[in-house]
Amino acid sequence: MRNSSNFLDAASSILGEKGLTDDPELLEPWLTDWRGRYTGRALALASPGSTEEVVALVRLAREHDVAIVPQGGNSGMCGGATPDTSGTALLLSLRRMNSIRAFDHADRRVTCDAGVVLQTLHEAVATEGLRFPLTLGGKGSATLGGLVSTNAGGTQVLRHGTMRALVLGVEAVTPQGDVFSDLDPLKKDNRGFDLKQLFIGSEGTLGIVTGVTLRLVPAIADRVVGWVGTDSLESARALLLRCRDRFSGALEGFEVLPAQCLDVLIDHIPDARRPLADAHPWNALIELVAEDIADVPALRSGLENLLAEAIEDRLGRDAVLAANEAQAAAFWDLRENISPAEKARGPAVQHDISVPEARMPAFIAKVGPVIEREFPGTRVVGFGHLGDGNIHLHVLAPEGADKAWVESDGARVSARVYQLVTQWGGSISAEHGIGQAKVGQLARLADPARLDLLRRVKAALDPDERFNPGKLVALAKGTHPH
Amino acid sequence: MRNSSNFLDAASSILGEKGLTDDPELLEPWLTDWRGRYTGRALALASPGSTEEVVALVRLAREHDVAIVPQGGNSGMCGGATPDTSGTALLLSLRRMNSIRAFDHADRRVTCDAGVVLQTLHEAVATEGLRFPLTLGGKGSATLGGLVSTNAGGTQVLRHGTMRALVLGVEAVTPQGDVFSDLDPLKKDNRGFDLKQLFIGSEGTLGIVTGVTLRLVPAIADRVVGWVGTDSLESARALLLRCRDRFSGALEGFEVLPAQCLDVLIDHIPDARRPLADAHPWNALIELVAEDIADVPALRSGLENLLAEAIEDRLGRDAVLAANEAQAAAFWDLRENISPAEKARGPAVQHDISVPEARMPAFIAKVGPVIEREFPGTRVVGFGHLGDGNIHLHVLAPEGADKAWVESDGARVSARVYQLVTQWGGSISAEHGIGQAKVGQLARLADPARLDLLRRVKAALDPDERFNPGKLVALAKGTHPH
Repeated sequence: MRNSSNFLDAASSILGEKGLTDDPELLEPWLTDWRGRYTGRALALASPGSTEEVVALVRLAREHDVAIVPQGGNSGMCGGATPDTSGTALLLSLRRMNSIRAFDHADRRVTCDAGVVLQTLHEAVATEGLRFPLTLGGKGSATLGGLVSTNAGGTQVLRHGTMRALVLGVEAVTPQGDVFSDLDPLKKDNRGFDLKQLFIGSEGTLGIVTGVTLRLVPAIADRVVGWVGTDSLESARALLLRCRDRFSGALEGFEVLPAQCLDVLIDHIPDARRPLADAHPWNALIELVAEDIADVPALRSGLENLLAEAIEDRLGRDAVLAANEAQAAAFWDLRENISPAEKARGPAVQHDISVPEARMPAFIAKVGPVIEREFPGTRVVGFGHLGDGNIHLHVLAPEGADKAWVESDGARVSARVYQLVTQWGGSISAEHGIGQAKVGQLARLADPARLDLLRRVKAALDPDERFNPGKLVALAKGTHPH
Repeated sequence: MRNSSNFLDAASSILGEKGLTDDPELLEPWLTDWRGRYTGRALALASPGSTEEVVALVRLAREHDVAIVPQGGNSGMCGGATPDTSGTALLLSLRRMNSIRAFDHADRRVTCDAGVVLQTLHEAVATEGLRFPLTLGGKGSATLGGLVSTNAGGTQVLRHGTMRALVLGVEAVTPQGDVFSDLDPLKKDNRGFDLKQLFIGSEGTLGIVTGVTLRLVPAIADRVVGWVGTDSLESARALLLRCRDRFSGALEGFEVLPAQCLDVLIDHIPDARRPLADAHPWNALIELVAEDIADVPALRSGLENLLAEAIEDRLGRDAVLAANEAQAAAFWDLRENISPAEKARGPAVQHDISVPEARMPAFIAKVGPVIEREFPGTRVVGFGHLGDGNIHLHVLAPEGADKAWVESDGARVSARVYQLVTQWGGSISAEHGIGQAKVGQLARLADPARLDLLRRVKAALDPDERFNPGKLVALAKGTHPH
C-alpha cells in the first residue's frame, strides 16, 4: 500500500458516507473472529451498496495496491474473515447489500444479494411454503455470501448436500474488477467447465461473491424423530444404510454419539434426560421428514417397524420414537449441547474432520487409542454426522491441565490428528474451511498435486494476492508454480 | 515437435507393443469424428494400459514438446476429440483401461477406469439391482472418460442431472504429469475449492481423466408413459410444473414436439402412428418411473388424474397413457426419430442450445419467425427437453437447396441463432460442448469476464497448450491474460 489517505479519499467518494469508515470503534467488532482466536487490523471498513460499487472499489484497490478482506456475518470458525495485523488491508462487508432480488415459486429458486442473512432467507421463503434446506448455528448472522464462499454445511447435508449442491448461480467480482455473472442459471450449459464452482468454497480468495441464486425445496409438514441405543458404531452404520434404503428422500438426519458424550450431557446440562432407560455404547439420532402431512403416519410406522427389526437383528439394543414435537426437540437439544457440555469439563481441542463414510467406525475405534497413548492423560471423544462421514473429534486435556494446554500440547495433538486423518484418506476440514487456522496444516499435509492446482488457480485469478491474502493457500514469494 | 522418431521410440518403450501404433490403417478410423465433419492427422495412437503409463507418456510428451489429443469413444458432436491436420499431435485412447475398479453396493457407487464403455457400466450395475442413470444414443461406444470430460447430458437429466451431478470423484493426469486423485470421495471436504470440477466438462484441455467414481441409483421396476396434446408450449410448461409438484422424484422425462415434427415423423418413419386421434399444435411426452413395483398403480392413477384435470383446465386438449411397455416404447421411438425424419426432408442446420427454462416457450415463439424472415425460405422447428430448457432448434434449408447450403447460408443461420440465444441469456452449447466446432462462436459471443476466466484457468494448468490444443478455448499467442 502506497498512500492510504489518497486511497481512502477516493474510496469514500465511490461509497459515500454510509459506505466507508475508519472509526476504530465501528471497526473494532469486526477485527476479531467470533471465537476470539484471531484479531487483526484494517485500514477501514467498506460497505458498498451495490455490485457496481464493489467493482469500482476493487478497481481502485488495484490501482492503489490495497488488499481486500471480505467478511460475511463474521461467524466463521477458522479466522477466514479476519485481516492480518499489518493494518494495510481493507475490510469489506456486504451487509448493506441485503435484498432478495427475485423469487421464482414455480421453479423453486431465489436470487439474493450476498449480504442477506440466512435466517432472513429462511423466513422469507417460509411465507411462500418453501424452504431453504441449509441451516447452522450461526444462521442469525451468517450471510449468503459467506455461506457460498465457505461452502457451508450444517445439519441437513445428509439429504440436501452442502451449499455447493444448493447454489444454482453466482455473481462475483474478480480481482481484475470484472463481474462474473451466472445468476439466471441454465440447467444445461456446456460452454466449458463450470466457473461458478471456483467461487464456492474458495473463502473469498478468488472473487467477492455479490449475489447468488439458490435452489429451494418444499416446506416440511412434520418430522418423525427416533433414538436408538447400539452396541457399536458398526451397528449404527448398518442401521443408517437400512434407513437410507427404506426412506431414501425422507431421511434428513442421522447423528451418532458415544455413551460418554451422553453421560457428560446428563451431568452438565440442566433438565437433560436420557431418551432410553439404560446406557448403551453408542446412540443414534434419526430424523425423517414429510413434506405432506398425509405421509407422516406411514413414515412413523415405517420407522417403528425398521427399529423393531433392527432390535431383532441385534443392530439396535433399544429404541424410542419422540411422542411429539417437544420430545423431538429435546432429543436434538442433546445433540446440539455436546460442545457446550464438553467445554464445561475442561480444556480440549476440537477437530472438524471427515473420512470416507464407510471408514468412520474404524477410524474412531483406532485413532482414539493412538492419541490417548501418544498423549498420556488425554481422552478422545468422536461424534457427529455419521451419514456424511463428518466427525467432531474432541481431545480432552489431561485432568488438571489449564487453558494454556490448548496452545501447547493441544497444538501438537491437532497436528497428529490431521496427519492421521490424512493417512486415512480424510479431510482436515470437513466443513469449516481452511481460513488462517489451517493454512499451515493444509500446506504441510495436502497431496502435492492438489496443492499445486490450488496454487495455480489462485495465481491465475489473483496473481497479486489482493483478495483475502494469507488465507486458504499462500503464494509464498518465489514459489509461484511454473 | 522436434524429433518425432526419438519421441516415438521412447513412447514405445513405455507403452509396449499393444500401446502404440503409427500404422495408418489402424489410425484411420480415429482421425475423423463420427459425424464425418472433421478429419485430422496424428503422429501415432497411444493406448496406455494404466494411469502410471499415462503419467510417463505425458512427461515424455512434455520433454519432447508433443501435444496430446485425448479421445474416448469418438462419438462427440463437436470434433472435440479429432486432432488438427498438422500431424504433430499424439492421439491418446484409454480403451485398454476398461476395468471396473471397485463397486460399493451399500454406498451405491462404482469406481471405473476411464475407458469403460457406458453400456458396459449399465449392464454391470444392473446385475446388482442398481442403475447408472445417464444414457444417450452413443452408449455403445461412449467411454466414461469422454462423458466426464464433456459433462454429458442425455435423456434423464431432468431427474438426475448431467454427468457433473453423478460424478463423485475423479482421477486425472495433469499437463505437468501429476496425478490428481479424488476417487474415494468425501461427502464433506472443505480444503479449498472443488478441483475435480475443473476436469468435468473441460474436454481434455486441462487434464486427462483416467478414472472416475460415480453415483448409482436403484434400478427401475416399471414406468408410466403419457402423451398429451396441447394448444401451446406455455400450456405444456404449466403441465410440466404440475407434474413436478405432484410427482417430484418420479418424473424422469418431459419432452415436447410441435405438430409439424409429428407430421414429418408420420410421413417418413414406417409404422409410425399418432398417439392421439387429432393433430395438436404441441405434444408432450411424459415419463414417470417407479423403483418399487408396488408404486406403479398409484403413479398411473396419479398421472391419469393429473391429465384429466389438465384437460378440464384447458392446459391439455387430449391425452393418453401407454397401455403397456410396447406402446411406451413406441411413444419414445417417435421422439427419438425426429432427427432422422427431419434429415429425410432435406438439408438443415441443427443447434444444441439452452435458455433459462421459463423462457423456452417465448424463445421458440419469437426466434423462429426472426430466422424465417431474415433467411427467406427456411423453416424453424424447435423441440426437446422442456424440463431442462434444452432446445434442439433445427433450421431447414429452403426447398430445392442442396447440401452445400449447410456450409454457406447454413453457417450464417447458425451464427445468427447463437447470437440470439446469447441475447436471451442462453447457451450456445447445452450438452454437446465446444470442441472445434464452436470454438470461434464461443470466443465471439461469450461474456468477456467468463472468457477471461476460462483462459486464465487454461493458461494456469496448461500454459503450453499441450492438452487438446485448439479445442474449447484458445490461448492465441500474445493474448495470454495478465
